[in-house]
Amino acid sequence: MLRLSGTDVQSSLYEKYESEVRSYCRLIPHELTKATNAYVHTSAGIRYIDFFSGCGALNYGHNDPDMRNALVEYISGDGIAHSLDFHSESKGAFIKEFADKILLPRGLDYKIQFTGPTGTNAVEAALKLARKATGRVNVVAFTNSFHGVSLGSLAATANQHHRGVSGIALSGVSRAPYADYFGREVDTLPWLEQMLSDPSSGIDPPAAIIVETVQGEGGLNCASAEWLRRLRALATRHGALLIVDDVQAGCGRTGSFFSFEFAEIVPDIVVLAKSLSGFGIPLAAVLLRPELDVWQAAEHNGTFRGNNHAFVTARLAIAKFWSDSSFSASVEAKSRAVGAVLDSLQHRTGRLRKGRGLMQGLRCQKAESAAEIQRRCLEAGLLLERSGPHDEVLKLMPPLTIEDEVLEEGLSRFSEVALSVRDDS
Amino acid sequence: MLRLSGTDVQSSLYEKYESEVRSYCRLIPHELTKATNAYVHTSAGIRYIDFFSGCGALNYGHNDPDMRNALVEYISGDGIAHSLDFHSESKGAFIKEFADKILLPRGLDYKIQFTGPTGTNAVEAALKLARKATGRVNVVAFTNSFHGVSLGSLAATANQHHRGVSGIALSGVSRAPYADYFGREVDTLPWLEQMLSDPSSGIDPPAAIIVETVQGEGGLNCASAEWLRRLRALATRHGALLIVDDVQAGCGRTGSFFSFEFAEIVPDIVVLAKSLSGFGIPLAAVLLRPELDVWQAAEHNGTFRGNNHAFVTARLAIAKFWSDSSFSASVEAKSRAVGAVLDSLQHRTGRLRKGRGLMQGLRCQKAESAAEIQRRCLEAGLLLERSGPHDEVLKLMPPLTIEDEVLEEGLSRFSEVALSVRDDS
Amino acid sequence: MLRLSGTDVQSSLYEKYESEVRSYCRLIPHELTKATNAYVHTSAGIRYIDFFSGCGALNYGHNDPDMRNALVEYISGDGIAHSLDFHSESKGAFIKEFADKILLPRGLDYKIQFTGPTGTNAVEAALKLARKATGRVNVVAFTNSFHGVSLGSLAATANQHHRGVSGIALSGVSRAPYADYFGREVDTLPWLEQMLSDPSSGIDPPAAIIVETVQGEGGLNCASAEWLRRLRALATRHGALLIVDDVQAGCGRTGSFFSFEFAEIVPDIVVLAKSLSGFGIPLAAVLLRPELDVWQAAEHNGTFRGNNHAFVTARLAIAKFWSDSSFSASVEAKSRAVGAVLDSLQHRTGRLRKGRGLMQGLRCQKAESAAEIQRRCLEAGLLLERSGPHDEVLKLMPPLTIEDEVLEEGLSRFSEVALSVRDDS
Amino acid sequence: MLRLSGTDVQSSLYEKYESEVRSYCRLIPHELTKATNAYVHTSAGIRYIDFFSGCGALNYGHNDPDMRNALVEYISGDGIAHSLDFHSESKGAFIKEFADKILLPRGLDYKIQFTGPTGTNAVEAALKLARKATGRVNVVAFTNSFHGVSLGSLAATANQHHRGVSGIALSGVSRAPYADYFGREVDTLPWLEQMLSDPSSGIDPPAAIIVETVQGEGGLNCASAEWLRRLRALATRHGALLIVDDVQAGCGRTGSFFSFEFAEIVPDIVVLAKSLSGFGIPLAAVLLRPELDVWQAAEHNGTFRGNNHAFVTARLAIAKFWSDSSFSASVEAKSRAVGAVLDSLQHRTGRLRKGRGLMQGLRCQKAESAAEIQRRCLEAGLLLERSGPHDEVLKLMPPLTIEDEVLEEGLSRFSEVALSVRDDS
Repeated sequence: MLRLSGTDVQSSLYEKYESEVRSYCRLIPHELTKATNAYVHTSAGIRYIDFFSGCGALNYGHNDPDMRNALVEYISGDGIAHSLDFHSESKGAFIKEFADKILLPRGLDYKIQFTGPTGTNAVEAALKLARKATGRVNVVAFTNSFHGVSLGSLAATANQHHRGVSGIALSGVSRAPYADYFGREVDTLPWLEQMLSDPSSGIDPPAAIIVETVQGEGGLNCASAEWLRRLRALATRHGALLIVDDVQAGCGRTGSFFSFEFAEIVPDIVVLAKSLSGFGIPLAAVLLRPELDVWQAAEHNGTFRGNNHAFVTARLAIAKFWSDSSFSASVEAKSRAVGAVLDSLQHRTGRLRKGRGLMQGLRCQKAESAAEIQRRCLEAGLLLERSGPHDEVLKLMPPLTIEDEVLEEGLSRFSEVALSVRDDS
Repeated sequence: MLRLSGTDVQSSLYEKYESEVRSYCRLIPHELTKATNAYVHTSAGIRYIDFFSGCGALNYGHNDPDMRNALVEYISGDGIAHSLDFHSESKGAFIKEFADKILLPRGLDYKIQFTGPTGTNAVEAALKLARKATGRVNVVAFTNSFHGVSLGSLAATANQHHRGVSGIALSGVSRAPYADYFGREVDTLPWLEQMLSDPSSGIDPPAAIIVETVQGEGGLNCASAEWLRRLRALATRHGALLIVDDVQAGCGRTGSFFSFEFAEIVPDIVVLAKSLSGFGIPLAAVLLRPELDVWQAAEHNGTFRGNNHAFVTARLAIAKFWSDSSFSASVEAKSRAVGAVLDSLQHRTGRLRKGRGLMQGLRCQKAESAAEIQRRCLEAGLLLERSGPHDEVLKLMPPLTIEDEVLEEGLSRFSEVALSVRDDS
Repeated sequence: MLRLSGTDVQSSLYEKYESEVRSYCRLIPHELTKATNAYVHTSAGIRYIDFFSGCGALNYGHNDPDMRNALVEYISGDGIAHSLDFHSESKGAFIKEFADKILLPRGLDYKIQFTGPTGTNAVEAALKLARKATGRVNVVAFTNSFHGVSLGSLAATANQHHRGVSGIALSGVSRAPYADYFGREVDTLPWLEQMLSDPSSGIDPPAAIIVETVQGEGGLNCASAEWLRRLRALATRHGALLIVDDVQAGCGRTGSFFSFEFAEIVPDIVVLAKSLSGFGIPLAAVLLRPELDVWQAAEHNGTFRGNNHAFVTARLAIAKFWSDSSFSASVEAKSRAVGAVLDSLQHRTGRLRKGRGLMQGLRCQKAESAAEIQRRCLEAGLLLERSGPHDEVLKLMPPLTIEDEVLEEGLSRFSEVALSVRDDS
Repeated sequence: MLRLSGTDVQSSLYEKYESEVRSYCRLIPHELTKATNAYVHTSAGIRYIDFFSGCGALNYGHNDPDMRNALVEYISGDGIAHSLDFHSESKGAFIKEFADKILLPRGLDYKIQFTGPTGTNAVEAALKLARKATGRVNVVAFTNSFHGVSLGSLAATANQHHRGVSGIALSGVSRAPYADYFGREVDTLPWLEQMLSDPSSGIDPPAAIIVETVQGEGGLNCASAEWLRRLRALATRHGALLIVDDVQAGCGRTGSFFSFEFAEIVPDIVVLAKSLSGFGIPLAAVLLRPELDVWQAAEHNGTFRGNNHAFVTARLAIAKFWSDSSFSASVEAKSRAVGAVLDSLQHRTGRLRKGRGLMQGLRCQKAESAAEIQRRCLEAGLLLERSGPHDEVLKLMPPLTIEDEVLEEGLSRFSEVALSVRDDS
């Protein structure tokens, strides 16, 4: 077993200079240094298997050699790094690749808006656009959703830990119960249908319904294909745009590039960020149906809305992993492997298997158990996160590119730890 | 004279796939490709002198060779790119450099919060923190200010072009007239003093006053040292935090690292972004007085709040340019050169010289003239931007590192064009 | 059958001078002149039986002779009419009567706040107080609720016809499904319980839950005693105050003075208006548990918060009708008579009987049928109103004091008309 | 000197049962009983001269015998008291009188909206209408203004004592400095002109500008005719409606029926309440230019929007006092008498004379002095109020109908007391 020292030569630096808002670093006192694919190294010489993947920002692992080399070549050749929203060679190449390999094969007719390079900024843009295009104000968002913490996105985000620090009214959002929010036996869409059909329900006609197909932060809650299809139809019926926030579940995390493909729906607006650059560097985009493109020039702007380094790696990510269906197939195979382990754990511990694709996990009966399992996993050299209303869901999110044997090793460590902690203790 | 073709092999790609929200690219149909220091190259083989500097994100020019090499080395060595807010070697090194070279020599006692890597995200964090720390809601922001376009920042931003597309009420901000808003003869601070002293003024006690020392987007309006000192005292007197939004004016743009140093004030909170990474890649931070650090872990979070590539270049930028005062001195010398040219133009055209340091410009009597001058500068191979309420202010923002002869050549082109367009035509 | 002329000597006056916002007058072109108990006379010599009762403001009928005489005596003797919130003889007498006859016998320990003399003003005060006392912002209000149209109350009101004209964001209210909103087989309180128990539901901890025990404007929807008891417990469990808006259902309309007595619950705050004065003149009040009385003097004020004429009649209404249980008993007897007629109509037409006490009615399958029935009732000399999301519910609200034979006559007219209009036509 | 006992047989009743929000009653422990014109009697046998006039709700004094008799006759004859917004004989008669005696002679073309019978409800309606008619959200309101305390009006009200208890964001209002807010030497309209002309000022284009011509609660601040005329033109120039809140200054208080007549302006919307009924009973109305009447039926509604008792007295008030110019002339004569006394006091004490017409007063250097003067006036049998940001302005508002000798006696008592308290003590 690895020994995590509570003190570190650098810890005092962070204590002294970094705000108390810092969070993940409280799990590991050491500094991360290098990383390749699913391995992360620290200043203490520890090597972790990464079942965290930057909360979904590292779907293709750390430092994919092809992207790394392309990026190094670009920088070495004085390729322009920052160019606002001017046309740039790297942007043009990305757009072309994205159109050819992602949009066209899927029959998707979207225009792309590059926003500030964070998920929350892209969500802000999507909400503005929906309100502008429909002339309505209200937005329906779901229980346990996470859409970011800038003020517009935060109104849609459900978590009280984040909402409580807004310091000002969060308005313009009506809350609806997500799929299976009241258990599998309760269909939640009739709730929304009734609310939107009744002119006296008190839920104002919405500009948009914003949804994650898998709620990453909310506890790996999944909407079924059938629920999503009905939601799509419901939105259309009530003149609301359907926004899929695919920041965490998109870019292959569930097997297909977009997380909604399995449901065969076409959202009006799609929000992408996290793994869009492919390399863990900031990039975000909004996809919108062309007839919704009512933006005037620069109405939503931002300094870093063109990040050429990210375009370079993002183009390569598309070219390398999405030119045919083999990558998808391998992700699905790995998902099945993860699922099998979780099924076994569910059977042995009563903890619920959750999630879909390579964003699966295990819900503990007690939040304390989840915290203890996470702690012991770290000691065992396995990096993973928790989510859910009480941080009670252990989240297994390895890189999609993780080697089978590393995945197996990680799952093995996880199983061992998960079995060693009891919820009834 | 360069010939800008209206059609370009790639233009149709952008037309088809990129949202109408795109703006700068409407100035140049070609793609930007490579860039070094103050030169930017396009796919059409045109080389521009860059008096734009990514709206202040490229204070150290394009592809500074030292930063470039360090970044290439980091990436080539599989340095971790994305690590959320875990400790990382590159972050630790940056913090140390920033503390040693920036904070300590200036006697500044700040903690650092790394937010999502955009200015607007850092402003959102600053506003939340101010509201949380004071228990107040209202924020005073100034006429012609720009603080970003996500909903919380947008409420503080003054420009109607951006505000008008919020789609929902922008609340929690009271507007105050900036320095010299009513002309030099009217002192605007008594206005604010009276409003905050009168319990029946209708301006609620503010959590914070947020100010830019030079309003980049607002038209290069400057606050004097004396005005800023009185604003600092006024904020203290009324229990409000003073937030300096140094996103555009900071990181050396006015000569000193922080734009407020000339006024010898200490803000409670400072917002940095744009040139913080030194290389044009996304990074943002909030500096806060330690006693204001009332954040709970992860209350304000975000996927890209640790951008290790940016830490690598940001550390080097500090080390290279801010270890002694020589860089500041050179910026001031260049500022004087720019000022001399603008003075001459003001004398010959009646257009007002505006701004401070290397963010100076010329206000045309008519917005159309400014647009025409910008257009002709582009034809002459000079890249520059306009700002101000009517986009009537031509903005000269070369890299701080621009070679003297290139600066001279750029100024020469600018002068020639500026004299060729008349406001009374 | 009465003949309602479409033209009237006075109509042009109203056309010319009264705003298009006027509504009820569109039902009857003539002017109302005199009225006694359940009879209303018009300038055209028509006498209506009043099943409207001023939307519940005339529970004791028009011009109750005892109140009338007392008011005439008060005015004739130069009793002070307007005295802001100074103590006044008439106010003191009312308070004493209200305490002795209403509060004490029911074991209710409330303080009284006299607000501006409208229901909406009292609701505004109640919401402010709840937010101040709890330090929370959010308020839970129900589908189909009506709480008034000033901005604070309007946020809680559900009806889109009223909400849509706010012109500005209505914030601070979360919507919950009322009892039986999804039909009798769906219990709606587990919805609210789950939402308030889950820190990541997106429904912020509420300052208050505001509820009508019968939704007058919403379509005569009723909450059961058991539902209200569970709601009371739920509110307590989650630190929220329970506000009963008894503006329409209170003052005896359901048989007991307060509409919540049948459920044996004690709200934290009760809002009264409409029939509080007993005579149809403006008076409103908030009842609050003493420990919630965190008001500072004059924080919520208003010119007409003391209306002495109203205190005179209000005192007498309490003394006359609530000194023993006989009035309640007679209201219950009348309610049964109305219920029997409605049951019969439900049986014969399939239209649903709705409501409770003397606020019962009939829901038509089609709104057009309800409109037609209302029109024909007017022709038959019966005044009544519609409510519900689509104005599809015919509302029978005679004075509680209506003579049995007049009630019978009114019900007879109603039955005849209701049977003459078919929903399937 | 009268002796005000600190204890009263009834005081315990109010202590026990009336909320702490009560305010004026803290000045006088006794109950008010009867009142005629400018005299008010208490249960302790004390007779006060009333320089308070119900904060402007009793412009025609208490119990005007003609109104009293007409009201008694109406009630005795079973005239309908409550009729929602049905046509009623008393309403028709009022409208006709108001049109003939008030609107037509002044060449004013307004439609009338009867709102809930409080000033704040009428202000809410006016703001909604302005927003609906213009499609804009923002409203400009002034420093030291008071427009009511329901949430929509409260956003426009300036006083922190009231604003602070809203419990939720007050949005949609920009604050502008009132006439002479920075002293007589500073013209405040260029401030507003600049703000509304600059698309980057941060003050969004307003739906309306709402103004009191004399700020009753704000401290008797007056706008000049010339300032109001320029404000009228400014509003038109910027597409904003001009709303005059004439709740306190209207109905003859400044000499003319509307307080804005002296400026020869025509507001787009006028708000009336307080003395509109003439008898101190609740009535309120919005006057609107016919082309602004975009209301749909019942969009803004309320139970007491028809108060027939009030219509009876309101009609008589118009007929009796506004059929010719003699009443205006007598008010002006009384205003001069009050002004002469205040001029003398200003000369002798350095306290500033404030206000206009019969809403004049004296600003003390210290709020404590004003409180002490008010207290001693009460002891001397003179009832008056204070206003202003610190309650430092003593407010002399006798009935407009006060007999000359009673006015003289009141002024004499006031002078004596005012001279007996020193600001420098």
